[in-house]
This record gives sequence, structure tokens and C-alpha cells, in this order.
Amino acid sequence: MVSPLAPKGGFPSLPIVEGVRFAAVAAGVRYKDRVDVMLAELAPGTVVAGTFTRSKTRAAPVLDCQAKLGGPSHEGAAFLVNAGNANAFTGLAGIEAVSAIARGVSDTLGIPATRVFTSSTGVIGEPLPHDRVTTALADLKAALDHGKIEPAANAIMTTDTFAKGSARTLDIDGKKVNIAGIAKGSGMIAPDMATMLVYIFTDAKIAFEDLQSLVSQQCDATFNSITVDSDTSTSDTLLVAATGASGVDCAGNEPFAGALFEVMDDLAKQVVRDGEGAKKFVTINVRGAKNQDDARKVAFSIANSPLVKTAVAGEDPNWGRVVMAVGKSGAEADRDRLSIWFGNVLVAKDGQVAPEYQEAEAADHMKGENVTISVDLGLSDGTATVYTCDLTAEYIAINADYRS
Amino acid sequence: MVSPLAPKGGFPSLPIVEGVRFAAVAAGVRYKDRVDVMLAELAPGTVVAGTFTRSKTRAAPVLDCQAKLGGPSHEGAAFLVNAGNANAFTGLAGIEAVSAIARGVSDTLGIPATRVFTSSTGVIGEPLPHDRVTTALADLKAALDHGKIEPAANAIMTTDTFAKGSARTLDIDGKKVNIAGIAKGSGMIAPDMATMLVYIFTDAKIAFEDLQSLVSQQCDATFNSITVDSDTSTSDTLLVAATGASGVDCAGNEPFAGALFEVMDDLAKQVVRDGEGAKKFVTINVRGAKNQDDARKVAFSIANSPLVKTAVAGEDPNWGRVVMAVGKSGAEADRDRLSIWFGNVLVAKDGQVAPEYQEAEAADHMKGENVTISVDLGLSDGTATVYTCDLTAEYIAINADYRS
Repeated sequence: MVSPLAPKGGFPSLPIVEGVRFAAVAAGVRYKDRVDVMLAELAPGTVVAGTFTRSKTRAAPVLDCQAKLGGPSHEGAAFLVNAGNANAFTGLAGIEAVSAIARGVSDTLGIPATRVFTSSTGVIGEPLPHDRVTTALADLKAALDHGKIEPAANAIMTTDTFAKGSARTLDIDGKKVNIAGIAKGSGMIAPDMATMLVYIFTDAKIAFEDLQSLVSQQCDATFNSITVDSDTSTSDTLLVAATGASGVDCAGNEPFAGALFEVMDDLAKQVVRDGEGAKKFVTINVRGAKNQDDARKVAFSIANSPLVKTAVAGEDPNWGRVVMAVGKSGAEADRDRLSIWFGNVLVAKDGQVAPEYQEAEAADHMKGENVTISVDLGLSDGTATVYTCDLTAEYIAINADYRS
Repeated sequence: MVSPLAPKGGFPSLPIVEGVRFAAVAAGVRYKDRVDVMLAELAPGTVVAGTFTRSKTRAAPVLDCQAKLGGPSHEGAAFLVNAGNANAFTGLAGIEAVSAIARGVSDTLGIPATRVFTSSTGVIGEPLPHDRVTTALADLKAALDHGKIEPAANAIMTTDTFAKGSARTLDIDGKKVNIAGIAKGSGMIAPDMATMLVYIFTDAKIAFEDLQSLVSQQCDATFNSITVDSDTSTSDTLLVAATGASGVDCAGNEPFAGALFEVMDDLAKQVVRDGEGAKKFVTINVRGAKNQDDARKVAFSIANSPLVKTAVAGEDPNWGRVVMAVGKSGAEADRDRLSIWFGNVLVAKDGQVAPEYQEAEAADHMKGENVTISVDLGLSDGTATVYTCDLTAEYIAINADYRS
């Protein structure tokens, strides 16, 4: 069943990004007759930037990708992603599997193995049957096509209920620049089957250092500002490939940075919208914190609180739980300066319930599909916004019954 | 419905602690005809130590109790606790309510208001109708009795499904020393109705500094080592009163420290056993961490992970989620040195699944009411043990539907 929060209208129509060809096939990594491997071939000149999970138990493909960032762009590159097996916590065999796949892609496409970026998502702790992937490479190569980004988005899904795509097209100095991205993820993030993987492609011309710095910076307000269940995958990966095929130099270009941000923001929110069991999309705004760090602590403390999330599920404007989450966050807070809103309804002010507060108004806001909780700490000018979803009985059902 | 994890045999028989008298009455703080206020009168010479929530949004009674620790024991003391209203986030009115109740108890019992310790638990953000409490004081005084600790334990319950009590009696130099405690709490901790409150009484003779230091130290491995849902109340309170009536000097006495630890440990575990929706009692053992701090980080990261807790609910020996929780904890970890056990079953070793691992054996362990997850980080000698419960659909039902 598709998440009730899925974007209306299904998978968006994404523009062709020159310099990128996609293919997706059923390689039987775990399940028969399911398209489960995708290949993106990136033309010579493509720059690849990325950000990754900060988990101390990162999976082998993640460590391999990190080491390969900033490599020689004139050689071209490739992304190879399999679903069904995460190749995580697989010891030496995990490293060998990554090498075997990278070598296979290298041989098949004629690019160096050091330019092959692989990701794996699926069950953890089982050896990845990498021969099933390498056996499929000839078919993948034969299927490569500029228009196949949607099959690629489908191939990387696990517990996702919808494929995620987003794009922007810019006009810069009379020339078109395209950005198109795909993502998977529906927990933040269950290591079994719900790792977040994101691949964004653009024909912008931009040096590695510029692209990496832009991506790292914009990751904080997008993929690092979402949470479904406070859990962090061993495999989260974001890769951004810039082919340069548009010929438009986008280093330092504000509209390009803005469009890339929008694609990242859209894909990040789509991951939340596919949060396991999610019925409501929740925005947490914090302002007035001592500094940005404190603002993020408070925002995540609210967003990750099981009691706040269950209150949202129950459509209960339970501001006491918000006070609790502020208090436990570790950030500086003064109870008597705290203000809280549900939507536009001022609920609490100066450390107590607002005199004009009518619970019915806040309850009305909670009934909607989009819930906003805003907190002003009244201390200084630190701000943060974090996106999450509610915590429902379906989350428990999905995660308690998963393998049984 | 009483928690399936409740101790068999109901409320234990607790010894009389000389120097303490209890009373409990229905004051109608929130609900009619429910015993909701308890008073403990403490004889002159009683020393009171305590520990409290570290929340930055502590409730007024907590701040008041903290300020009163270490006061003049020759004056006696009293504990007054109401259920139904937490007097939290109530601004100046909250402070006034605490003062009014303390003054009332002071007038009624003839002890200084600075020796009256009050706690409140229940809904947050609503002014406490303190006149209902003070009106009941005459009845409370009339009802005072050494034997009424069980009614007191009942009076402080909110969403608890069973009253919690524990005791030890020691023989020191031929004299008896009694320790008896009561607690409430069934989330760690919902501020609405599930704050953790603990009151322990002993007739030991011990100076404030010695008792406080013992209580603070033992709190780390007991009340600060439990978690139901990672949420922290604005009102958590532990008070320990030593009347000295046994005449036995217990400062530095190891058996006394041990017995007090056992009572604290037992009450802490009873709170977990009454965790909202809990069906399984879970012990998380961590060893081999870089240091104690890291060990606690890892243990709490596992204990608070919704994915680990739902896996326990689903009786799934899902060690991949344990790896994930280790990785996200922030503690130093080396994937390739990690070992994991469910019960006595070695699941993973040296960063991969153990060669001899049989999932059926681990699955058997998960079917029991008591689940133990052990992790060896293989780095150094930091250890920690944390207690929690599983995360079930009932937790969602209790917390999503609470006020609706």
C-alpha cells in the first residue's frame, strides 16, 4: 500500500541529463523476478561528490565510496546499486564483494575500478552474492539508456511504498541546466531494508571541490534534517554526479545552488513521506536558541520523542510533551521564556499556557495531514527546522513483524 | 489490566520503619473518589537525601525539593505527593502552589515549611488546585499510621498498572535496620501521567552528606540505568529519608549500602516492568568499551532504538539492528571487533555473523519474557548495564489515544 503522504500524481517526469545513461535489471540478488540492480554510466568529465552516514559501523560499500570521492573525472564513472542485501557487517567478504563488483563494472564499461561507486541495501549480515550482480552486467550494459531513470528509481527500493524522484531545470545565460535525482528510504533508517540512498545527476559544469562543498553544506538542512525513528543506517549514501555536458559553469552560481537545494529538499521530504507507518508529515521549527547547535538539539529531541510522535498520531495538541522534549534535549532552555505553537495557534507563552489558548483550535490543526510544531526558546537567535512523521501502530507492525 | 511483567504475588509485605507515618486520602485533585494524595510524616532527626530529573524544564516542586535537601534534620520533615496534576509548566502559579501546600503541611504537622518536600504528578500545564490538597490535610493528619505504606503507594499511581514496593531488613550488630520504598512510573517518562516518583524510608542512622553521596552514587546503576521510551520527565524525583530510629550508625556500612542498592534496583526494575505496553523485560549488557561513558552510550543507544525494541516485541533476533544502534551511539566502535549475544547465543563475532550461529537458538531466547542482549566492543574495559522493555502497539495506543 502506497503511503498516504506520497506525492500525488506518481513518479514525476524527469528531464534527460546529458552524460548519464541508466539501466535496471532483475539479478535475483535476494528475490526472483524483481528488478533489483541499477547501473548509471557517467560520461568522461563527470565529477562525483557525496556525503555518507556518520555511523561507526559503516558498511563496506560506504567506506569504498568515501575513499573514491575526488577521483579523476576525465575517466568517467559509474554508480552500481543493488537492493536485497546490504553487504553490511560481512567482514572481509564484504570488502571482496565491493571489489568484485567494481572490477566487473570496470571491465564491462571500460572505466577504472576506482571510478565505480557501489551501494547495497537490504538484509544485513549475510554475504552479498556478488556473482549474481556481475553476471547481470552484460545485460545492464546492453540496456543503458538516457531515459531510464524511473526504472533505476524502482530498482533501488526495498520497503519503500513509492519510487522517489525530483528535478529542476534552470536557464542560465540562455542555456539549460538540468538536475534530476532519485532516492530510496522509508525509515531513518532501518538497516534491514530501509537504508537511505540518494543519487542526483546534473549536466552542470563544476569542479569537484565546489560541488562537494555545496553538497556538504546543503546536506545539513536537507538529508541531515530529517528523521523517521532516530535510527541511523550503516549504509546511508548521497552521491551527486555533474557531467558538465551543458557546458554551463555553475561554480558559485546561486540559482544552481538553489535548484540543487530544492531537489535535495524534495527528495529528503519524500523519504519522510514514506516513513514507516507515517500518516502525518511533521515540521518542527525552533528559534530563539542559544545557537544553531542548540536549536538542532531541541528540534531533533522533539522530532524523535516517541511521546510527541504518538501524540501527533493521536491528533492530540499535547504541548506538555513538547516541553518535556525541550527539557531533555540537553540544550540551554529557560522554562519561563518558552513559547510553543501548533500551526499558527499559540499554545504556551512565558512558561505557561497562553491566556487566549483554545484547545479546539490546536486540535483542528492536528487533524490535518501536515502538522507544524514551533518553539521559541526566547534566548538568542539560533534556529533549526527538522522534518519527521508521526509514530503509529503500523510502524510497530512493520518493524516487529518484519522477518517473522 | 496489570502489566504481564508485574511481580507475581502483588504488593510485597513491607516492614514498619520507625519514625515514619503514612496517610492517603481522596482529595479530588483531578478525579472524584480516587485516593490521590499521600502524606509521609518523618520524625525529628530524619535526614532527607534525593536525586532529581536533569531536565532543563524541571517542574516547580522539583526545584523546591532540590533547594531543601540538607536542611535541619532535628526539625523532622514530611513528604506530600499528589497525583492527577503535575504542577509543571505553570509559571508563577506553580511556585505559589508549592508554597501553599508546604505552608499547609507545616501548619498541620508543626514542622517548618523548609522541611516539607512536595511532588506532583499528572497533567502538565494546568494550574494545580492546591486548595483541594490543603483542605485534605486535616484528614491526612488524622489518618497517619506506621502501617499505611501500601495506601501511600497506591495514592501516587497514575497510568501505573500496579503499585510498586520493595524492602530489605538487615541485621547489623544484633540490631534490625529496615529499608522500605515505594515508586510510581510507567514510562521513562511521559510528563502527562507517567513521571517517576520514588520514596525510600529507612530507620538507619546516617548523616545527610553520607546518605546523599550513597544515593547519588547508586542512582547511576539503578534509576539512571532504566529507559522505557527515552523520554525524560520534568518531575522525576527520588527522595530517601533516614529516621535514625534503629540507632544503628550506617555511614560507610557495606551491607546497608548493598541493601539500599537492592531496594533501588528492585524499584527501578519495577518501573520498567510497568513500562507502557511492555511485554518483555530487556537487559542490555555492554562490555569492552573504551570507557564507562562510551559503554553507557552504547547501552542506551540499543535500549532506546525503536527498531531494536520493535524487534524484541516481534521476538526477532535481529542483530543487524543492534549493529546499527552501536554505530549510531557516538561511542568509539570498531565494526570488526564487535561481538553480540542474544541470551547465551553468540550471534556475531569479529564483525560478521558467528560461524556456529543458529538462528533458531537465538529465536528461542527471544520468545521468553526476559530478553538479554550483550555486546562486547572489544576495545577496552568499559562496561554498562541498562534495563528497558519492548516497544509494542499498545505503547502507541496508550500514548496516541491518551487525551482523546
